[in-house]
Amino acid sequence: MVFFKVKTTEEVLELVHGFQPVGEEIVSLDRAFGRVLSKDIVSPEDLPGFPRTSVDGYAIKAKDSFGATESLPALLEIVGEVGMGQVAAMTVAAGQAVRISTGGMVPRGADGVVMVEYCHLMDQTTLEVTRAISPQENVIQPDDDFKKGAVVVQKGRRLRSQDVGVLAGFGVTELPVHRKPTVAIISTGDEVIPIHEKPKPGQVRDINTYTLSAFCVQQGAEPVALGLCRDDLEQLRNMMLKGLESADTVWISGGSSVGTRDLTLKVFESIQGTELLVHGISISPGKPTLLARKGETAIFGLPGHTASAMVVAEVFLAPFLARLGGDTLLHEKAQNKVAAKLSRNIESAGGRDDFIRVKLIREGAQWIAEPIFGKSGLISTLVEADGLLRIDRNTEGLYQGQEVEVMVFTPVKGESV
Amino acid sequence: MVFFKVKTTEEVLELVHGFQPVGEEIVSLDRAFGRVLSKDIVSPEDLPGFPRTSVDGYAIKAKDSFGATESLPALLEIVGEVGMGQVAAMTVAAGQAVRISTGGMVPRGADGVVMVEYCHLMDQTTLEVTRAISPQENVIQPDDDFKKGAVVVQKGRRLRSQDVGVLAGFGVTELPVHRKPTVAIISTGDEVIPIHEKPKPGQVRDINTYTLSAFCVQQGAEPVALGLCRDDLEQLRNMMLKGLESADTVWISGGSSVGTRDLTLKVFESIQGTELLVHGISISPGKPTLLARKGETAIFGLPGHTASAMVVAEVFLAPFLARLGGDTLLHEKAQNKVAAKLSRNIESAGGRDDFIRVKLIREGAQWIAEPIFGKSGLISTLVEADGLLRIDRNTEGLYQGQEVEVMVFTPVKGESV
Repeated sequence: MVFFKVKTTEEVLELVHGFQPVGEEIVSLDRAFGRVLSKDIVSPEDLPGFPRTSVDGYAIKAKDSFGATESLPALLEIVGEVGMGQVAAMTVAAGQAVRISTGGMVPRGADGVVMVEYCHLMDQTTLEVTRAISPQENVIQPDDDFKKGAVVVQKGRRLRSQDVGVLAGFGVTELPVHRKPTVAIISTGDEVIPIHEKPKPGQVRDINTYTLSAFCVQQGAEPVALGLCRDDLEQLRNMMLKGLESADTVWISGGSSVGTRDLTLKVFESIQGTELLVHGISISPGKPTLLARKGETAIFGLPGHTASAMVVAEVFLAPFLARLGGDTLLHEKAQNKVAAKLSRNIESAGGRDDFIRVKLIREGAQWIAEPIFGKSGLISTLVEADGLLRIDRNTEGLYQGQEVEVMVFTPVKGESV
Repeated sequence: MVFFKVKTTEEVLELVHGFQPVGEEIVSLDRAFGRVLSKDIVSPEDLPGFPRTSVDGYAIKAKDSFGATESLPALLEIVGEVGMGQVAAMTVAAGQAVRISTGGMVPRGADGVVMVEYCHLMDQTTLEVTRAISPQENVIQPDDDFKKGAVVVQKGRRLRSQDVGVLAGFGVTELPVHRKPTVAIISTGDEVIPIHEKPKPGQVRDINTYTLSAFCVQQGAEPVALGLCRDDLEQLRNMMLKGLESADTVWISGGSSVGTRDLTLKVFESIQGTELLVHGISISPGKPTLLARKGETAIFGLPGHTASAMVVAEVFLAPFLARLGGDTLLHEKAQNKVAAKLSRNIESAGGRDDFIRVKLIREGAQWIAEPIFGKSGLISTLVEADGLLRIDRNTEGLYQGQEVEVMVFTPVKGESV
């Protein structure tokens, strides 16, 4: 084994971005929400496609209203009404007005709509207009929303409600999206037992399969739980090969002890064409993390401590899955980052990035980040925490009252696993 | 119809919180991620349940290391090794050390673990310890993570990865959660046609069924799309009754024109026991919003403009669905709110809360909120936007460079509809 220098956060993030997005599939529009578009969608026609009013009122020639005021209203002849969804039969001539409702088609001849609030009926056919409108006022032009040939939604966008809506507006009933990346999850360790069993002293239940599976769902990926693996070279090798065959990436958790980590490294060496990319990251917690590449497939060796594995997941596996899933916009935006004031001083060793679990507490218009300290093997601190705070390796610590940015843990509100 | 005063944002939010959460159901743990816990989960046992080491090293009596340094190491006799998942057979006596890996059970007699980094093997059975440890150092006590009887995860919590993980740790294989609230969605308007049809001039495709359905999924609710409804009293009445029978809440979109709004109001009047709670909200866009109560069920009349309906959804329907779904923590936390600097002055009419669509642009360590202006009927501005900015009704506007809080639109990365 060649000597490996521990890598920095940025070096590992760069490696993670070297993997390629998965392929695409076609989904129907009613299943497209939350999926990542794999091709630009171009407008097949102008939208709305006809001149439309944005208010309730009367379609008129704008110049007929010029100079109109409360004291000196313009008088117009009402010649009809446009029904919703109908093409107006009439043409509006000078001195005429046609009743129209929000969303209705502006009739020929009219070049503006005066709001009903500025109109008074003198009798059935005579309208008083008390305010001037400019030409095209309250009219949405046929191509105001989208011009034919314009990019409506960009590829790489994880579709939001409004993106789905605009595609509905164009009659797009199915569309190309990236497949959901699949993740083979292997939980190792002779002390780990299935969750429905009662642990004997020295044994613990398999937490990592559950946290990592849930994390995959949260990130729009599909977990493939391969189950538990003993600290045994042949068994781990077979499970890793199975993972490589069945999924887009393989995650092995449980390598906290030197023994298990060495075992994982030996399995990497035993599978031809496997290249070790990362042997340790200068972060805390999460240092004993491994990353290898077999062809196009990334294999992660994650720390066995749940808290450490979750930090690695938030910092590296979230952008990795975004990359694999074709989501190019995620990290340009501020999602899940909250500005807060630190409640107390935190010292930091330097030479590594520290990720501190924090609670967020509201004080007036301000968020306070309250660090949670505890032994590194504990899960309870993670349950108590709202997010993570990064202390950069070139910093000796953070001060009470300092402005910090917290990465907030977000649950998915959509479908469960 | 009694004269109704337009209500403020806060008054409507208070009414929304007057509705009761839906009932519960039992789900298996592997489907629990993203669901809202309906009962506190109490620790059935101590966790981890046995003394556990958090490092690789040697279990010793701490006082045997007192005074040990690089130049004056303590010498100990290695008497064995603890296998992972095993109960140590031996008891550690004074002057003895037992090899142990991260996560292993600390043997009887030992009260601390010295990290392997501070140990040197003199020979097979003789250990040099170059640093003192304090009693209990690197040892996780049997109840350090959770004491038997402690609340592990609180009811009202939407379960995150780590919450699912800790429940796995306790062997919880199924648990009580709130049902997903069901939402009957009705899209009205004579001009609205199904999305697979080709609109004639004056017609538009049904966007709102798709935006609102996707929004429900995003908020952890289940949409029940009842389809299109003509501007017809009897048809709307029948669809509303069907919605009241089949779902926990009914949303009617399309009431932007005065005609449709009046129709919706007439239907409310025609259904016995329906009480009108809100007739207009002092916001822009979204003013022509209706809220009625029939028994325990809320009926919303939403504006027909997609952009207006989406603002009402973000501001009122998100907290409403959180309330219905039993999620008590959502609005205590800072999720989806981003601090940004405003790129230009915005004037505001006053007397109403304005919700401005904004793009977020990164400049160094700072987010810039860039307002997007456009006619109110346009969808394209919503697709371009990253979130909404609120201008309070008691404010005359906001200034360039002012610190503002942006409500960011978030897609769900989990399962699609």
